[in-house]
Amino acid sequence: MIYLDNAATTRPDAECLQKAEKYLDNYYYNPSALYAEGYNIQLDLRKARRNILSTVCADGKFDLIFTSCGTEADNQAVFCGGKRGNVVTTLGEHSAVFNAANELKQRGIDVRFAALNGDGSVNVDDLLNLVDDKTSLVSVIHVNNETGAINDIGAIAAGVKSKNPHALFHSDGVQAYGKLNFRLTKDIDLYSASSHKIGGIKGTGVLFKRKNLAVKPFIYGGGQENGLRSGTENVFGIKDFEYVAVKKYSKISENFCFIRKLNDLLWDRLDKNLFMRISPMANSPYILTVGVEGLRGETIMHEADDNGLIIGTGSACSSNDKKRYSRVILACGKSLSVADGILRLSFSPENTVAEVERAADILNRIVKNRKEMMS
Amino acid sequence: MIYLDNAATTRPDAECLQKAEKYLDNYYYNPSALYAEGYNIQLDLRKARRNILSTVCADGKFDLIFTSCGTEADNQAVFCGGKRGNVVTTLGEHSAVFNAANELKQRGIDVRFAALNGDGSVNVDDLLNLVDDKTSLVSVIHVNNETGAINDIGAIAAGVKSKNPHALFHSDGVQAYGKLNFRLTKDIDLYSASSHKIGGIKGTGVLFKRKNLAVKPFIYGGGQENGLRSGTENVFGIKDFEYVAVKKYSKISENFCFIRKLNDLLWDRLDKNLFMRISPMANSPYILTVGVEGLRGETIMHEADDNGLIIGTGSACSSNDKKRYSRVILACGKSLSVADGILRLSFSPENTVAEVERAADILNRIVKNRKEMMS
Repeated sequence: MIYLDNAATTRPDAECLQKAEKYLDNYYYNPSALYAEGYNIQLDLRKARRNILSTVCADGKFDLIFTSCGTEADNQAVFCGGKRGNVVTTLGEHSAVFNAANELKQRGIDVRFAALNGDGSVNVDDLLNLVDDKTSLVSVIHVNNETGAINDIGAIAAGVKSKNPHALFHSDGVQAYGKLNFRLTKDIDLYSASSHKIGGIKGTGVLFKRKNLAVKPFIYGGGQENGLRSGTENVFGIKDFEYVAVKKYSKISENFCFIRKLNDLLWDRLDKNLFMRISPMANSPYILTVGVEGLRGETIMHEADDNGLIIGTGSACSSNDKKRYSRVILACGKSLSVADGILRLSFSPENTVAEVERAADILNRIVKNRKEMMS
Repeated sequence: MIYLDNAATTRPDAECLQKAEKYLDNYYYNPSALYAEGYNIQLDLRKARRNILSTVCADGKFDLIFTSCGTEADNQAVFCGGKRGNVVTTLGEHSAVFNAANELKQRGIDVRFAALNGDGSVNVDDLLNLVDDKTSLVSVIHVNNETGAINDIGAIAAGVKSKNPHALFHSDGVQAYGKLNFRLTKDIDLYSASSHKIGGIKGTGVLFKRKNLAVKPFIYGGGQENGLRSGTENVFGIKDFEYVAVKKYSKISENFCFIRKLNDLLWDRLDKNLFMRISPMANSPYILTVGVEGLRGETIMHEADDNGLIIGTGSACSSNDKKRYSRVILACGKSLSVADGILRLSFSPENTVAEVERAADILNRIVKNRKEMMS
């Protein structure tokens, strides 16, 4: 099978898994235990913390909170980051921020959603217009998970701070971390990432947090993570995340260039009479989203699956709410008939040129046949 | 090393790990993905759900929500279970309930804490006196994690319901699930459990929930777990939990009798001139808590560690809040000098009679020597 749904999840990196496996075996102790065996695990967690911090943070400016997933990290940012006043976010957020923000709205908070450009990036003017001196939190996704559009969060955060220096700035970096070569800038306060999107295993996320920034806990209990995230640490998942993150950042530019090549190649090979590009040209190369007017994305996806090609039709998570049209694609201004035929093709460095060429052939053939059957 | 801190965490069961490993490898797909490979993982999760439910629930009466740990399950019960009015819990709760309840109090909710008996069990009369027609939630720990005292949650829940049939009843079953042979009774609405306390891996918990009971989500996002717990499912952790739970319940009585024997043997061998029993006689056999007056538990723990014996000094989690005395032990009415010298010895079916005999010798020798040095 050719796997081009790496934005949904990735195959765990075997080498990193093997390194982490000892935490399922002889190194199983509770890191909160005070005897040497437990304390050593605590030290190993500290090392994971330092190594993961070093991938995107200037020395000493950030901390991090280990969470159980990117969604939890986003929820902590949304529910525990803002103090009072209004919250500004975008129509292009992943459900983890979008639905959390909607819940805040339900609780009576003034939540404002900025409009999108046609490619899924946020309309920055609209966003900044929504920020005022009562804004407590602004949350803008780094790479849109449905189109691959990159928001320049460093510049957006600076714009937010110049309007209101007290507003916290959070970004959901789940589709950017380990893929784009960037550093957390001085205007970014909170940043979420997830392990299983970059070759780690499901069950570990992280919320980067500007040092000394007071954020409330989201999960209360034994006081792990400096009181900010209670619950026995998922040591195996955290150490695997460390190994994967370090490995990804050691080859971040090399991977980026290779994936850019795969993405360009796939777009190049797709029949432009059949496929419409939804992703911007300057997208994250890890995601290529295309539209097929008049056909259902789900139908093409299933036929591709039968032909040895696994692709997505948008956010995997959105399959749970059983909605036919992606709210993000509609917010990009696409028609219902375009929104109906969305395919998300997403890459990992494990994909090959030959796979991508074959994927283009399969997709061209399926869509051509179906279009011919219709006419 | 002899490991007698199994209430903190357990060595993962190798056989179950091996069965679950395929979910780190070829079966890595996102269970929310709609293609066959993803859907098959969803089916595997459903099987895990059914099998875990079958361990403690009468057919069809309960659902469950997979969470990232017992703490998260407890937090969801406390924050999302009650509607309005007051919340009743106990002074013997694990921090996951206790600190969540204190946070509710901070938010202006009337939270009431029932007193404990000397062994750490809840004073049921006191608890029922606190329940009134405005009570929305009652939470009582099943097995006290610091003393091993068992609360008869079936009877307590029935008592609560007879005072207020609308109050939800939750129990933190983290130290009971997979250890005691019990069924969720009709008066229990919510019940938390954790995988890594019974031979599973860290990172997976569960909140059993009476079917059709409306509970709010705690983590918002892609709508996994019927909308009640968003975030990509930790498939490996969940399947491992399934295998471990089924295995534990297949030998639940056999294990119970064996652990009872180990517990009784250890208590029998400990020098009664040196050690005072804190656990009740009818405790969960998985925990034996003793006190050593005039010595610090931590000192004994470190010396035992140097001698090849790993033991606890109370809840591992409580080490994070850096408090010298356990609030639970003090709530049992013990003096500061007793609370200072608490040792928690906790078992798993992997322990042996020979280990327990050796543990008794080590502890007797250490405490005897230290007492002699003091006098």
